[in-house]
Amino acid sequence: MALLVETTPSGREYKVKDMSQAHFGRLEIELAEVEMPGLMGCRAEFGPAKPLRGARITGSLHMTIHTAVLIETLSALGASVRWCSCNIFSTQDHAAAAVARDSAAVFAWKGETLHEYWWCTERALDWGPGGGPDLIVDDGGDITLLIHEGVKAEEEYERSGTLPDPASTENTEFRIVLGLIRGSIVGDPRKYRKIKERLVGVSEETTTGVKRLCQMQANGTLLFPAINVNDSVTKSKFDNLYGCRHSLPDGLMRATDVMIAGKIAVVCGYGNVGKGCAAALKSAGARVIVTEIDPICALQALMEGIPVLTLEDIVPEADIFVTTTANKDIIMVHHMKKMKNNAIVCNIGHFDNEIDMHGLETYPGINRITIKPQTDRWVFPETQTGIIVLAEGRMVNLGCATGHPNFVMSCSFTNQVIAQLELWNERATGKYEKKVYVLPKHLDEKVAALHLGKLGAKLTKLTLEQAAYISVAVEGPYKPTHYRY
Amino acid sequence: MALLVETTPSGREYKVKDMSQAHFGRLEIELAEVEMPGLMGCRAEFGPAKPLRGARITGSLHMTIHTAVLIETLSALGASVRWCSCNIFSTQDHAAAAVARDSAAVFAWKGETLHEYWWCTERALDWGPGGGPDLIVDDGGDITLLIHEGVKAEEEYERSGTLPDPASTENTEFRIVLGLIRGSIVGDPRKYRKIKERLVGVSEETTTGVKRLCQMQANGTLLFPAINVNDSVTKSKFDNLYGCRHSLPDGLMRATDVMIAGKIAVVCGYGNVGKGCAAALKSAGARVIVTEIDPICALQALMEGIPVLTLEDIVPEADIFVTTTANKDIIMVHHMKKMKNNAIVCNIGHFDNEIDMHGLETYPGINRITIKPQTDRWVFPETQTGIIVLAEGRMVNLGCATGHPNFVMSCSFTNQVIAQLELWNERATGKYEKKVYVLPKHLDEKVAALHLGKLGAKLTKLTLEQAAYISVAVEGPYKPTHYRY
Amino acid sequence: MALLVETTPSGREYKVKDMSQAHFGRLEIELAEVEMPGLMGCRAEFGPAKPLRGARITGSLHMTIHTAVLIETLSALGASVRWCSCNIFSTQDHAAAAVARDSAAVFAWKGETLHEYWWCTERALDWGPGGGPDLIVDDGGDITLLIHEGVKAEEEYERSGTLPDPASTENTEFRIVLGLIRGSIVGDPRKYRKIKERLVGVSEETTTGVKRLCQMQANGTLLFPAINVNDSVTKSKFDNLYGCRHSLPDGLMRATDVMIAGKIAVVCGYGNVGKGCAAALKSAGARVIVTEIDPICALQALMEGIPVLTLEDIVPEADIFVTTTANKDIIMVHHMKKMKNNAIVCNIGHFDNEIDMHGLETYPGINRITIKPQTDRWVFPETQTGIIVLAEGRMVNLGCATGHPNFVMSCSFTNQVIAQLELWNERATGKYEKKVYVLPKHLDEKVAALHLGKLGAKLTKLTLEQAAYISVAVEGPYKPTHYRY
Amino acid sequence: MALLVETTPSGREYKVKDMSQAHFGRLEIELAEVEMPGLMGCRAEFGPAKPLRGARITGSLHMTIHTAVLIETLSALGASVRWCSCNIFSTQDHAAAAVARDSAAVFAWKGETLHEYWWCTERALDWGPGGGPDLIVDDGGDITLLIHEGVKAEEEYERSGTLPDPASTENTEFRIVLGLIRGSIVGDPRKYRKIKERLVGVSEETTTGVKRLCQMQANGTLLFPAINVNDSVTKSKFDNLYGCRHSLPDGLMRATDVMIAGKIAVVCGYGNVGKGCAAALKSAGARVIVTEIDPICALQALMEGIPVLTLEDIVPEADIFVTTTANKDIIMVHHMKKMKNNAIVCNIGHFDNEIDMHGLETYPGINRITIKPQTDRWVFPETQTGIIVLAEGRMVNLGCATGHPNFVMSCSFTNQVIAQLELWNERATGKYEKKVYVLPKHLDEKVAALHLGKLGAKLTKLTLEQAAYISVAVEGPYKPTHYRY
Repeated sequence: MALLVETTPSGREYKVKDMSQAHFGRLEIELAEVEMPGLMGCRAEFGPAKPLRGARITGSLHMTIHTAVLIETLSALGASVRWCSCNIFSTQDHAAAAVARDSAAVFAWKGETLHEYWWCTERALDWGPGGGPDLIVDDGGDITLLIHEGVKAEEEYERSGTLPDPASTENTEFRIVLGLIRGSIVGDPRKYRKIKERLVGVSEETTTGVKRLCQMQANGTLLFPAINVNDSVTKSKFDNLYGCRHSLPDGLMRATDVMIAGKIAVVCGYGNVGKGCAAALKSAGARVIVTEIDPICALQALMEGIPVLTLEDIVPEADIFVTTTANKDIIMVHHMKKMKNNAIVCNIGHFDNEIDMHGLETYPGINRITIKPQTDRWVFPETQTGIIVLAEGRMVNLGCATGHPNFVMSCSFTNQVIAQLELWNERATGKYEKKVYVLPKHLDEKVAALHLGKLGAKLTKLTLEQAAYISVAVEGPYKPTHYRY
Repeated sequence: MALLVETTPSGREYKVKDMSQAHFGRLEIELAEVEMPGLMGCRAEFGPAKPLRGARITGSLHMTIHTAVLIETLSALGASVRWCSCNIFSTQDHAAAAVARDSAAVFAWKGETLHEYWWCTERALDWGPGGGPDLIVDDGGDITLLIHEGVKAEEEYERSGTLPDPASTENTEFRIVLGLIRGSIVGDPRKYRKIKERLVGVSEETTTGVKRLCQMQANGTLLFPAINVNDSVTKSKFDNLYGCRHSLPDGLMRATDVMIAGKIAVVCGYGNVGKGCAAALKSAGARVIVTEIDPICALQALMEGIPVLTLEDIVPEADIFVTTTANKDIIMVHHMKKMKNNAIVCNIGHFDNEIDMHGLETYPGINRITIKPQTDRWVFPETQTGIIVLAEGRMVNLGCATGHPNFVMSCSFTNQVIAQLELWNERATGKYEKKVYVLPKHLDEKVAALHLGKLGAKLTKLTLEQAAYISVAVEGPYKPTHYRY
Repeated sequence: MALLVETTPSGREYKVKDMSQAHFGRLEIELAEVEMPGLMGCRAEFGPAKPLRGARITGSLHMTIHTAVLIETLSALGASVRWCSCNIFSTQDHAAAAVARDSAAVFAWKGETLHEYWWCTERALDWGPGGGPDLIVDDGGDITLLIHEGVKAEEEYERSGTLPDPASTENTEFRIVLGLIRGSIVGDPRKYRKIKERLVGVSEETTTGVKRLCQMQANGTLLFPAINVNDSVTKSKFDNLYGCRHSLPDGLMRATDVMIAGKIAVVCGYGNVGKGCAAALKSAGARVIVTEIDPICALQALMEGIPVLTLEDIVPEADIFVTTTANKDIIMVHHMKKMKNNAIVCNIGHFDNEIDMHGLETYPGINRITIKPQTDRWVFPETQTGIIVLAEGRMVNLGCATGHPNFVMSCSFTNQVIAQLELWNERATGKYEKKVYVLPKHLDEKVAALHLGKLGAKLTKLTLEQAAYISVAVEGPYKPTHYRY
Repeated sequence: MALLVETTPSGREYKVKDMSQAHFGRLEIELAEVEMPGLMGCRAEFGPAKPLRGARITGSLHMTIHTAVLIETLSALGASVRWCSCNIFSTQDHAAAAVARDSAAVFAWKGETLHEYWWCTERALDWGPGGGPDLIVDDGGDITLLIHEGVKAEEEYERSGTLPDPASTENTEFRIVLGLIRGSIVGDPRKYRKIKERLVGVSEETTTGVKRLCQMQANGTLLFPAINVNDSVTKSKFDNLYGCRHSLPDGLMRATDVMIAGKIAVVCGYGNVGKGCAAALKSAGARVIVTEIDPICALQALMEGIPVLTLEDIVPEADIFVTTTANKDIIMVHHMKKMKNNAIVCNIGHFDNEIDMHGLETYPGINRITIKPQTDRWVFPETQTGIIVLAEGRMVNLGCATGHPNFVMSCSFTNQVIAQLELWNERATGKYEKKVYVLPKHLDEKVAALHLGKLGAKLTKLTLEQAAYISVAVEGPYKPTHYRY
């Protein structure tokens, strides 16, 4: 695509695949609103007061239908919003079009190149001469990374005159990041520091992004406050678990139409995401096998009747492989060579380094047959048998389907909205230092409560005597912070 | 579409949506072959002898990727094949293109009008001046119906000179059938009788089609032998059950992206199809409620923890409704009026008369908003709330997704191949009269056996003593005919 | 126990373990009545007319609490009843005491020797000088066998003067049967023929007993009409399946307290009983493996995510083994030798020849340690490791727990009551020949219907148009006879 | 029972029901050892060094077979042990006898009165003139409570000369505690303070006991260090969840033989215990309904397809009620009055105040019919319908069955052993203050690891690169402390 920013009649910038899909996007957004009671509840409760008035929010998060409802909730609370996706395959083009037309500056399309991806990211950060955003909504931490790397490079440049060198890394994507920063320093050697200075904080969505934030906090390099939305119970025990239980089979079905019943499926990792994946595959009739490093999670799998083995034990027999670890180098090309013909290999963890795509792509004599976008058969020359890799090793639920369903994303995104409100409301109080925070439990419980009515649930109320007996307030919070749910 | 027959370079007739999708279709057919060990086993076992050489086969069965493997198996066994779909929404256009290009005469596309549908059906029956097909593969019985109605009308015309009158019926579709027969009598007053005379028999796939055949047998009007493939165990207890368990959620997800977890889902009917649907919805986290007329099936639902209520009891509370009854008038417009906003209504039974589409379409002031093809929101004027109807009341798994997965269809279609072989091999022996037959149990067991290796299963072998003790042969069949599995 | 018949104050004969448990038995019978709506419905509907007045019924069926409700239903309908158990371990002594005290002649206790078992059987058949019973309720066919063997031996004796020779068989139990018949011929050489002449018919409960009956019908040796209650849908698809799903884990828990979660459990046979066992073990968290001879049942297991292997493949790794085959010689001593220390071996099929108890008992140097009654650890001399065999290879759910729960037995036993009524009502009409019959479907549906109210279910009623459309009567029956549920 | 301490030939004190059951107990203990790899692993690893030599341990914890393996593990590590049960119904008398005969001083039997219960507790604390124990293993906190109340009363007595007044409380049980302390002050006004001074610490097993400890810590009244074993992941996410999933149906079946399939079951509370109970009931075929105060737990239930209602909504329709809340006054007599005839009411939470037993017992005209011990039918005079209350409102799994199975208790008890070792090893270092601690994560992971081999699991090992990438050590711990599993 030609990387030119376009402008709506009202003057808002955007770059999307096809603006004519905006009507279709709007229809699906309207359906989604009915499924997202947490976000709609925020609009009802906070919308009239416009508490985010004056806030510039940049988001980097899969540009899907449900994200559209998030963006428009932030708008409804008064914010100005610029948005990019955090994954090259996860955008739903009709969602992007509808938001771009109606409510926020969007730079995203399905099937970006890595170069396009980072161009979009830069655009989402670009609030013009007055510097960057006040708040960031991040998913995986790419925007946070870019700002930190930018600041680091600018300081190095100021100190030593050295510009970042893209050739210094073998990682294709990081090479692009360094090139982009190099270019920005040449244009404005204080750009990222100006962004940092304005920035109130970030709220981060994923296990992966939080891991990065905690590493920076531990190293003392974190530049602004961060709220860890991922570890709200209503996020990590809902979207990670129940979202994947829904969207993994959805991705497998849309990409391959494979019958899951009767198959042997290997789930690498039995955290929340792995638990959701394993539950879905098992109830669809697969024989599930888990690989784990952690003896506690391994014992949980066993208690559910799921064997725990190593990948080596099972690689020639299994039919479906899913990585969920948030670690790297899980399924290597030497594993893939030993698989059955037409074994399906996919990843549902945030980054695409769980599967050794580089090893596959550079395997001598390998033949890639694209069945359809995001569904490739890779045929090894020795055996002429092939494996089927989905979404090029990126998130299969977003690359091959539409991600998690709206209702569970309403939980996650209501946490995001509350986190953004919290950061903005406390921007001048010093409540949040350059650390990683989680939302307090009463807000977590509030997020859950906003979702009960839609499902017809009725809570029991404690009597005063009962509340006293278990030492909680009648209105909660009901559990100690270490409670595991 | 202009209803003109086209011709391949080799001279084979066809009419499909887009021949350029043939390559994509071929790639998916090749994947499907790996998933369909029963059909590939038939090719390996029977292919060399070409036992269907000389046989003309007309099929009316969803023109999908897995049907392509069936068609090409019949071809590999020596048959000539002409094909149409048995549902206006069920064709996968790339499958149709690949088969049309490479192996058989196909007349089918996704989204036919009823008029186009019957035009395609006529083309599939049209083997030129020499009369019709030798064998029919039917699904739902539309071809069988057409021939019976045609013969009846020709006889009436011969007797009384009366032509069929399309205006005599209120049923839109039957009006088209009568018009078509009327036209054919004018052109050739013996056409359908010539077809009947040549015809060796039909093998029928569905509960619905078998019901029709049995009614004709009971009335003494059945014109040729029929093999009831639906009641092979490896069909009715597999594709109906496990196929729907897979393809119902697939259809719901592709059409609406709705989160199934937490929702109240009503399954009308708890036969094999209903059992598959209920199992899928339950394991996805829905609260499932069943409606039933049959106390035995009702008690089965209860034993699985599923309440049995009437539609009236639950209509205002449920989120998802699925009809599976093979009966008519299950969900009427007066029910739909009382549903929640954005309740989802769909059907997975063969015919589209389970949901009162006519009542909906003619409801005064109703507003139909097409979200995307096969996903419509119908807004009632009184409440301005809407319901979402999938696939216009036709089979949701085929209209909104790709139907059952390949592996389970391999079971069903291997029964079809065996039935076609049986009819053809016995065409001159008088073994089959004008009755409805099921395949003998040893063939049913053979179909299952052909599918075990792919799943790594190992059977136990009876000793002679054990076989004698339970009064069976070592090699089976192992169960009495009344055994219910 | 001293084998002396005792007499109640009212003059009814009995032999039970401990009459002082009658009060406890009565309390549990009263609870059971609330759980057995089918039987109580029969009492309400038929009781006032006493349709079984004058009928002498002999039953051979596990003398449990729920059987007590059956016996007292037969009494309430006017019958005189004598009863024994059909398994040496299955009697609940308090149930036997309550019935013996209050309503019928009972000869049964938990832990009979084989000799005692057949003594009890003879007592149940002994209606005094006037011959035997009019009707038999049989479970496994032991009474039916005894009469047939008796008649055969009397005829042989009349023909050749030869008495049956116990030494002619190696089967311990059959030796006792022959001895018993030899004794009776000496006393009365027409005893069994007199029984046969009076006998109206038998209703048989089990897969095993039906198999025997069908063999006799096939051989032309069946002496009286038989109703196969086992193949009522409301029996074989309920008690066999849902009963075992309940009572297998119950037996395992009471006998061993073993944690099922995490274990590898092998279920030999995937018929209705095997399906129930596998479902229970799987949902308790075991990794279940099935062995099968029948490819169709094997494919069903695979569709549920259960691997199908041979016993040899898995014998050294599994923790729990359950036989459900109704065949013999399933788990042999050479298998048991290879098992893990403290592997649990049990049988839930009708007869105790699925597990090679004889091989185990006669294994040189083996050491049997009785943990508690029906729980034995057998230690092999070579390894000093042991396996745990439950209920001495007899039905684990009855030997180690209390059998199926009342509600599902109400379904089975309502079929029994209806079968007894049918045989008695038609005793003079010639409707039933010396063949094996199943109950007509409308009675099967009636049995189910009697159980819906207790569970709060509401059936949907067909309209006349709907009934016509699917060619059934509004009030049923709703399915063709071959329907598999 | 006459409350006289008896003495073994070797001079060890005890009081059990029937010493002749010791052999049976020993046989079951030997079976349990095979199922408890964590405890046996501790014996193997630590046993030779006798690290608990010199330590006096008093335990108050259900005196079952698996507890016997715990006691004998503590002994094997060098400790001297005195034990009582923490529930009047939970003792398995053969376990108590075996331990009393062979390894430790036991004071426990099934069916203690409250007076007997506290006599046993005093005996377990009574190490003779030299004061009390060094360490306490507590379950529910009764021993901890007794010491704290004793110290408080002694100090009050010293201060004011006032003795505790049993008449000052309406709580029957607390009245007994006060009477007992009053007596001890009269005998030795420093007894409990001497116990406190010697005491190194307590390790506590349950949610309930931990809640008490945390309240004391918050109030500043905690007298010694406490390790909260309950909140080890390998305890609260295993025994609470998977233990109850096993033992709730076990208790229901043994007590009532009720068929769970088809019933409506209400689970009050959806914490770990409630989740286990709901899972078991659901997979047994019940329709489960949950009551909750916490919106997060409520939303979890909904995601599993379980409706969340209030008790009032469902009380007249449900068949089975289970309380799991660790709160009080959950099912009151006014609820019980409205229940169906023979509804089953039970509790699986630690204390018996979840069900209003007092209200039931004092209901005017109520009739209690004991079916068998721990199974009572209570008949209301107005309706003459009854409800069935299990274990008199105490823990149904321990009162009516044998508690959790051995394998999962091996996890819990390995935590206990490690906690006892930790307290003892650090007794002089000041590491533990008068606070409540949890075990560090690497020990939690160790407990899990000890249980994997028995189940045939194989862990994957991190490479150094992978470990660095996720910032953990190769050998763990693998998760942050807030991780919820």
